[in-house]
Amino acid sequence: MNNPASILVVGSVAFDTLKTPYGERSKILGGAATYFSLAASYFTDVRVIAVVGEDFTAENEAVMNQRGVDTRGIRHARGKTFHWTGEYGENVNEATTLNTELNVFQSFEPSIPAEYQDSDFLFLANIDPVLQTRVREAMPHVQLVGGDTMNYWISGHRQDLEKMLKRVDVLLINDGEAKMLAGDNSLPRAARKVMELGPRALVIKHGEYGATIFFRDGEFAGGHHPFRAPAMPLDEVRDPTGAGDSFAGGFMGYLAAQGEVNRRVLKRAMFYGSVMGSFAVERFGTERLQSLSREEIDERFNIFRELTHLD
Amino acid sequence: MNNPASILVVGSVAFDTLKTPYGERSKILGGAATYFSLAASYFTDVRVIAVVGEDFTAENEAVMNQRGVDTRGIRHARGKTFHWTGEYGENVNEATTLNTELNVFQSFEPSIPAEYQDSDFLFLANIDPVLQTRVREAMPHVQLVGGDTMNYWISGHRQDLEKMLKRVDVLLINDGEAKMLAGDNSLPRAARKVMELGPRALVIKHGEYGATIFFRDGEFAGGHHPFRAPAMPLDEVRDPTGAGDSFAGGFMGYLAAQGEVNRRVLKRAMFYGSVMGSFAVERFGTERLQSLSREEIDERFNIFRELTHLD
Repeated sequence: MNNPASILVVGSVAFDTLKTPYGERSKILGGAATYFSLAASYFTDVRVIAVVGEDFTAENEAVMNQRGVDTRGIRHARGKTFHWTGEYGENVNEATTLNTELNVFQSFEPSIPAEYQDSDFLFLANIDPVLQTRVREAMPHVQLVGGDTMNYWISGHRQDLEKMLKRVDVLLINDGEAKMLAGDNSLPRAARKVMELGPRALVIKHGEYGATIFFRDGEFAGGHHPFRAPAMPLDEVRDPTGAGDSFAGGFMGYLAAQGEVNRRVLKRAMFYGSVMGSFAVERFGTERLQSLSREEIDERFNIFRELTHLD
Repeated sequence: MNNPASILVVGSVAFDTLKTPYGERSKILGGAATYFSLAASYFTDVRVIAVVGEDFTAENEAVMNQRGVDTRGIRHARGKTFHWTGEYGENVNEATTLNTELNVFQSFEPSIPAEYQDSDFLFLANIDPVLQTRVREAMPHVQLVGGDTMNYWISGHRQDLEKMLKRVDVLLINDGEAKMLAGDNSLPRAARKVMELGPRALVIKHGEYGATIFFRDGEFAGGHHPFRAPAMPLDEVRDPTGAGDSFAGGFMGYLAAQGEVNRRVLKRAMFYGSVMGSFAVERFGTERLQSLSREEIDERFNIFRELTHLD
């Protein structure tokens, strides 16, 4: 294992054009792998596999490099970068997608650079489960695999998704996705059904209400109850984009930095996930995640503790 | 102050006819004051002011008396008892009201029996704010006043409601009500605006996601952050009716039993509120709240602690 441990993330690096009640932005840096790696970079070494187009500038890539993120796995292809256009209303938990231009992402074929082969942790951000499984199989020796997915794959690519789920240790999805994947409206029942498909633990994200981690019986020693982390009660959620990916980055980043993965560590990882998600939404795009300090992060961790702890 | 301290609750005692995904029941015992007093009865002495009709039986009233609840303030009027008919779909957070027969409740005129005059705590369940204010003014010496309200009064009886809010220490409402009352979609901002109307603390209930208590600056010594209690991840929510009133009963009951009201105690009261809400919804109507033991309650309190505490 590397010291510090390294995380490999595969997913989208994209441009986002978006409008929220607080303003609008055009073609700003976004994408699941971007948010994930910036958030995780405060805890450990991060490596990215993604594809971008000719419109992706050296300045865009430098945003990640300045946080120490290894971007040698980002392939520059002919064409344009993945471009998402969306809008948020007053309900910050729901985005309306206005346009999805996959561009070079459509023919994304992740290949793992030699320098990445010794990665200790792996995060499969939300992409085609066939590609997720391929990357997973090319990295058989990682200590822990985290994964994400979405309604599109759940409803239309079930078999591919189930194959992927067999190879994931911790799946991170939201309430709607969990209920859809399990075909069950009770969250704890849905959680058990999803874990029967493979994951040893399941993180269900509740947006502004926080997130709950469920453990499969017998996995990760230390108690048998789920654990819930709150979200930060924020006055202003300026841009909810990337909150879930930032959560995943904080969660996986903290885990990777601990050496051992047990329930005690997983619970703290839930808090760090919520912390990074809360920072991400305070400003547009990745702005807030570019300039944090570990002190600010730990300060907010303590606020989360005060938010939930009795004494 | 009485020892143990006593709580006076004024509100509805009713019959509920309801359907949930788990079954249906016709004309079972319900009403905010009923759920509240049963939940609070596990912590302290409870007294009820309400009105019922001729169809309200001795057996109905005995349900409360068997828990030690003083029902001398329940007036038996000519006519029928308040009768609510509703339905819950798969989303347990939302009830569809099919019929509301106010009956004797329509001309409810709360009057406070002499034996209730020395009550230590007061809870104004969801009734006409004019009546809430009248009861509040007749009990000027109580240690703490809790209150509830609903969209109907917020949108249609604003002035009456604002008068009531000036005389309430802790208001307990749900997300939608808080946002509506404040005219603001951000929960922490809405909380501050609601507290500017009077309450020194505000409990916002999030249904299956728990509840958050916000404190007005300078009120209730001990920290400046809000506090969030989780809800219990339950496999089966058989009947969500009365969850909020049971929360209020556990919350106020625990408070009344402590002697002193500070933030430390208010935080624990949030847990006990969630605990009583979680029991209420496990079975239809008030069934589960009739037969608990303090041991079961404290056991579940400990589960709530495990659900949220890091160590």
